[in-house]
Amino acid sequence: MAHALRLAERGLFTTQPNPRVGCVIAHGERVVGQGWHQRAGQPHAEVYALREAGEQARGATAYVTLEPCAHHGRTPPCADALIAAGVGRVVIAAEDPFPQVAGKGMEKLCAAGIAVESGLMRDAARAINIGFFSRIERHRPWVRVKLAMSLDGRTALANGASTWITGEAARADVQRWRARSSAILTGVGTVLADNPQLTVRLTPSPTCSREGLGWDEANFAASSSNTTPALSCEQGRGQALAPVPPLRVVLDRRLRTPAGSHILDGQTPTLLLHAADATFPDDRFTHVECAAVAERGDALDLSAVLTMLAKRDCSELHVEAGPTLCGALFAAGLVDELLLYVAPVMLGDAARPLLHLPALTDMAARWHLHVIDQRQVGVDWRIRLRPQA
Amino acid sequence: MAHALRLAERGLFTTQPNPRVGCVIAHGERVVGQGWHQRAGQPHAEVYALREAGEQARGATAYVTLEPCAHHGRTPPCADALIAAGVGRVVIAAEDPFPQVAGKGMEKLCAAGIAVESGLMRDAARAINIGFFSRIERHRPWVRVKLAMSLDGRTALANGASTWITGEAARADVQRWRARSSAILTGVGTVLADNPQLTVRLTPSPTCSREGLGWDEANFAASSSNTTPALSCEQGRGQALAPVPPLRVVLDRRLRTPAGSHILDGQTPTLLLHAADATFPDDRFTHVECAAVAERGDALDLSAVLTMLAKRDCSELHVEAGPTLCGALFAAGLVDELLLYVAPVMLGDAARPLLHLPALTDMAARWHLHVIDQRQVGVDWRIRLRPQA
Repeated sequence: MAHALRLAERGLFTTQPNPRVGCVIAHGERVVGQGWHQRAGQPHAEVYALREAGEQARGATAYVTLEPCAHHGRTPPCADALIAAGVGRVVIAAEDPFPQVAGKGMEKLCAAGIAVESGLMRDAARAINIGFFSRIERHRPWVRVKLAMSLDGRTALANGASTWITGEAARADVQRWRARSSAILTGVGTVLADNPQLTVRLTPSPTCSREGLGWDEANFAASSSNTTPALSCEQGRGQALAPVPPLRVVLDRRLRTPAGSHILDGQTPTLLLHAADATFPDDRFTHVECAAVAERGDALDLSAVLTMLAKRDCSELHVEAGPTLCGALFAAGLVDELLLYVAPVMLGDAARPLLHLPALTDMAARWHLHVIDQRQVGVDWRIRLRPQA
Repeated sequence: MAHALRLAERGLFTTQPNPRVGCVIAHGERVVGQGWHQRAGQPHAEVYALREAGEQARGATAYVTLEPCAHHGRTPPCADALIAAGVGRVVIAAEDPFPQVAGKGMEKLCAAGIAVESGLMRDAARAINIGFFSRIERHRPWVRVKLAMSLDGRTALANGASTWITGEAARADVQRWRARSSAILTGVGTVLADNPQLTVRLTPSPTCSREGLGWDEANFAASSSNTTPALSCEQGRGQALAPVPPLRVVLDRRLRTPAGSHILDGQTPTLLLHAADATFPDDRFTHVECAAVAERGDALDLSAVLTMLAKRDCSELHVEAGPTLCGALFAAGLVDELLLYVAPVMLGDAARPLLHLPALTDMAARWHLHVIDQRQVGVDWRIRLRPQA
């Protein structure tokens, strides 16, 4: 199953909106077939593994990171394929999260006389599809907010200068977090200040090694073409797949995005969210999709934004925005994870703060987080945190 | 020599104003004597080691972490004692920093026909006496600034509430850094806001283990009575020595320290530094020493303060103060080391900043630091940094 999870990670940048899934078919210790899901519309992991196993699938055990599908989607049901191939046993890491179909795949396999077990390495299997599970189970994406700051918690000078607080390795690392996301969210304030492209520009990372990486890290190494380990199966012979470009999403209540902004260039799918009564100034928004969202106070309703994005198959949402939007998401309890890069520099107290948050009068009200990972990235550190419930 | 350095560290809290020194006497791999300097006025490390070695010192090699003294101070010269005992070879880690006496001990030994080498583990030997070397060579103490902050770089709420940002383990750790210091510096602002005691309250640290500790960390474990490893020599039989209480130093230009402040209680030596023309309001300063210092702008001259403290045998200066004093020391380039505790909480941008620093207009002017150590301390992290020249 550990190997099947490694295979699943190979789809980290490419399966959107589908989950990442890996499959290994084995007789005892002997692997006879392996595969992973590469792209939506293409065969599922089980199909690649069964193809490779051929006649050897008969009586074998199939290890699958996600419950095999039982319904006809864009491809035929994998449960049927496993039955047809005559596998003797199926071991599943995580159950299908869709309430309507959960357990259906397992039922079908059982009914065909196949021994079925589930739950092996379930946590790791859920972690690799953390956004997919969030979207299906919570009806909102997994919200990951990226922040870069100085040691004294500052993101830019008072005059707005912020290029670059963190080093090259940290910036390359950010690209990989963008690449695995379904969408990248920002606010119009950041568009006005920085005119960002919010596209994915992956570069091989010389400092990145597979050793010591957590499950959802391994693909960073595996996906760099120069570090992908050789794989003997059918899928191992192909070139590295291009990532699915994340949807760019801009919160622009009053449609203030300037003409000529990178975000309007139509190079990659872009969604601009605005208030229902906002007026379109001209035709500058021709190349992007615009949609109205409900307001709440003097801003767009962030819960409504997340619900809308989940409906559009957004699993992992990567946020790169200023202290206002990031602070509002955080204070509203909508942030699932902080991806915090810290540079070993001081900018002083005149510089800009990390997050705009409501003023506290009692230390008991401070926001607690817990660290899920921390490591050096070039000269900076990267700390991943989750708010405590 | 590594063993001699471990012995030297046992004096970390007690040798002030003397350096910490360890000595091992051996024939090849066989140790015949060991000792360390415990307290000023008591025998030096070499004397303890020679006593234990007795006749076996003849022809042996003595490993000493600091060049043996050649002059009559409060105790007779150690170089003479080594010669009298008939040791065959002396290996020295760090040379004596006093310009007047540097090399004299080595000369004396050489003149007596003893083979002398120096420089083995010199960096580690200098590190353990970093303040002593700073005081002798730079005429100012090693300035270590302790700061405790939230993830977003805040030290207290807007209303001043700051109890406690960091957890118990971090606060216990701070006590050990206080204990190794010659003096603890604060400003009158902190006295007015927090009425601190600035005394050393050591507690055994259950989370602290010798494993993986750097040179200057090991004593933290060794000094906790319940973790001190058994030592077979004379000095191993005694009780743990009480730390030498650090001098409390308050910068109080206008003598605003309120009557009844802990700092005025006379429980431990205290020095209050003020402007030459400040007026004494009453007899509240009876139990503390007061001294005038030159002013620079609208504050006391911090360089003059450091020079004065070095003249008073202050080797390591531990600073626990607010953003004004810490910021002024930092901006003036007078901070040698930051001891930064970071709690995994957010306090928001209304809360108080880490350091008051001059506003920057250009990112190139930001202050760079490098990390010399980082580790988890309870639920918090401790990051040690040094400003880059």
